[in-house]
Amino acid sequence: MEIGIVGLGRMGSNMARRLARGGARVVAWDADRARCADLAGEPGVECANGLADLAVLLAGERVILLMLPAGEPTQGAIDQLLSLLSNSDTVVDGGNSYYKDSMSRALELSQRGLRFVDAGVSGGIHGLANGYCLMLGGTPKAIEQFEPFARILAPGPETGWLHCGPSGAGHFAKMIHNGIEYGMMQAFGEGFALLAGRKEFDIDLGRLAETWRHGSVVRSWLLDLTTEVLAEDENLAAIAPVVADSGEGRWTALESIEQGTPAPVITMALMSRFSSQGKSDFSRKLLAMMRAKFGGHAVKRV
Amino acid sequence: MEIGIVGLGRMGSNMARRLARGGARVVAWDADRARCADLAGEPGVECANGLADLAVLLAGERVILLMLPAGEPTQGAIDQLLSLLSNSDTVVDGGNSYYKDSMSRALELSQRGLRFVDAGVSGGIHGLANGYCLMLGGTPKAIEQFEPFARILAPGPETGWLHCGPSGAGHFAKMIHNGIEYGMMQAFGEGFALLAGRKEFDIDLGRLAETWRHGSVVRSWLLDLTTEVLAEDENLAAIAPVVADSGEGRWTALESIEQGTPAPVITMALMSRFSSQGKSDFSRKLLAMMRAKFGGHAVKRV
Repeated sequence: MEIGIVGLGRMGSNMARRLARGGARVVAWDADRARCADLAGEPGVECANGLADLAVLLAGERVILLMLPAGEPTQGAIDQLLSLLSNSDTVVDGGNSYYKDSMSRALELSQRGLRFVDAGVSGGIHGLANGYCLMLGGTPKAIEQFEPFARILAPGPETGWLHCGPSGAGHFAKMIHNGIEYGMMQAFGEGFALLAGRKEFDIDLGRLAETWRHGSVVRSWLLDLTTEVLAEDENLAAIAPVVADSGEGRWTALESIEQGTPAPVITMALMSRFSSQGKSDFSRKLLAMMRAKFGGHAVKRV
Repeated sequence: MEIGIVGLGRMGSNMARRLARGGARVVAWDADRARCADLAGEPGVECANGLADLAVLLAGERVILLMLPAGEPTQGAIDQLLSLLSNSDTVVDGGNSYYKDSMSRALELSQRGLRFVDAGVSGGIHGLANGYCLMLGGTPKAIEQFEPFARILAPGPETGWLHCGPSGAGHFAKMIHNGIEYGMMQAFGEGFALLAGRKEFDIDLGRLAETWRHGSVVRSWLLDLTTEVLAEDENLAAIAPVVADSGEGRWTALESIEQGTPAPVITMALMSRFSSQGKSDFSRKLLAMMRAKFGGHAVKRV
C-alpha cells in the first residue's frame, strides 16, 4: 500500500505523516526542498527528487495525491504527470480546486486512460491528530483505488469520508462546506462584536464562549476555536481587521447566481471580507463626498 | 433545597424534572392544569394550586423560576408575585425576555427588597438529558441564591453556566446567542439548498451532513440536528417553507442599529425569515408591476 504526495505545505505534510503512521508507504515531493527535509525523519516517508523520480519510486497502479494551491500549481503538476504516468494510475486532487476545473481534468485524464479523484479536504492543522473530513468525487473505480488511503486519513475507517458522486462532486461539496463556514464565522464575529460593544455589562467573552460550549445551540468546532482565541486575548488589539478569502467563498456566491438559488448570508459574509480588505473604500469615499455636496456635511481627509 | 417553577411548557416542565432528579424539592405551577397533571407522577415535584399556594408551599428565602413567554405573561406573573413574596426572596426569569425589560424589573424588585436573576437558557428539548446552558445576570447575592439550582440544570456543576454580569447581562448574552444561531442556521440552509440545486451530482445530503460531522470545520450541534432531519426526509416535501421568529433575532438587529455595530449576516438571516413569512410579497408584487410598466414584461396573476 503506497501513495505519492505532491505538495508538502501545512496540509500535505501532515497528511503524509498521518498516512505513514497508518501503515502506508509514502513517497513525497515538494519543489521547496526545505519542506522535504522537514519530513525526512518521519518513518515510512521517503522524499523523491522530483516528479519523475516520484513516479519511478511507486510501483503497480500508482496513486498520487496532489496537495497544491488551486489553479496554476495544480494544473502544472497534472500537466507534468501526464507524461510520467501510465494506464490505470490515479491522480487525486486534494486541493481546493474549482469543481468545474475538476470535471474538465477528470475528462482529460480519462481520455488518456488515467483515473482522477477530486477530494475536498477539511480539518486544517488539526487533521493530523483528529483525521480529515474527505468529500470525494469520481468513478467508482477511481474511488476504489483511493479508498484505503481515505480510511486512514479520515477520523475513522467508516466515518468522515464520502463518495459524494461523479467527478466534480467532491470539490463541489467542499466548496459549499466552505461557503457555510464563511456564514458561520461571520455570525460568530458579529455576535461577539455586539457583546463587546455593550460595555456596561463588561462580559468576559472568553468565559461566555466557554460556557456556550456546554449545552447551547451554537456549540460547534468554530466556537471551540473562538473560545481559545478569546481566552488568549479578548481584545485582539494586535490583530489587523483584515480577513482574506481564498476562492471557495467566491465560487459559492457564483454558484448561487448561476443556479438562481438565494444565498444572501453566505454572499454577505463574502462581501464583508471584501470590505475588510479595503475594497469598500472607494464607495465610502464617494458617499462621504455626496453627503458634503447635498448637505454640506464635514468630510474627513487622510 | 427547594425551588418554585412557574410555567410548565416544554422548557419549564423538563427543567422541573431535571431539578427534582438532581435532588431539589420542586413546587410547580401552570395556569394550564393539564401541564401540572403531566408532572404529577414525577418524584420530588409537587404541584401548587396557584401562585399564592406556590408561595406558601416554599419556605425560607424563596427562589421562584419563571419559565413563561416573554412580555405580558412574564410581567403578569411578576406583578402577582410582588404581593406574595417577602424580603430576600429571589425571582429568576428563565424566559427569553428583552434584556432592557429585565434591567427595569431588577430595579423594581430591588426597591421592594426582592432579588432578581435574568437567566438566558439554551438547550431546547435536549436539555433534560444533556443539561441547559445558563447565562445569568444579577447581583452577586441574587446569583448566589440561584447557584445551587444552576449547578443541577447545567451540563455540569462547573460547566455551562456563567454569571455574565449585572442585571440584564444574562438575557443580553442569550439574545446575542440566538442572533448567532439565526446566522448559523441560515448558512446551513443556504448551503444545503445549493447542494440540492446542482442536481447532476445527486449528492445524498443526509450522508454528506453525517460525513461533515467528523473532522470538518462546520461540525456543530446544529449540523447534528440537520443530519437527523435530512436522514429522515431529504426532500422536505411536506414542510412549508415558513420560518417563525420569536423576538431575539429582532432585538439583536435592533442592538446592532443602536450600537452602530454592523451585523449584516444576522440581520439578513432575520430578513430571510420575514420573507419566508410572506412579508416580502408586497414589494415583489410591486417589482413585477414595475417590470410590466417599463418593459411590458409578463406579470403572473393569482
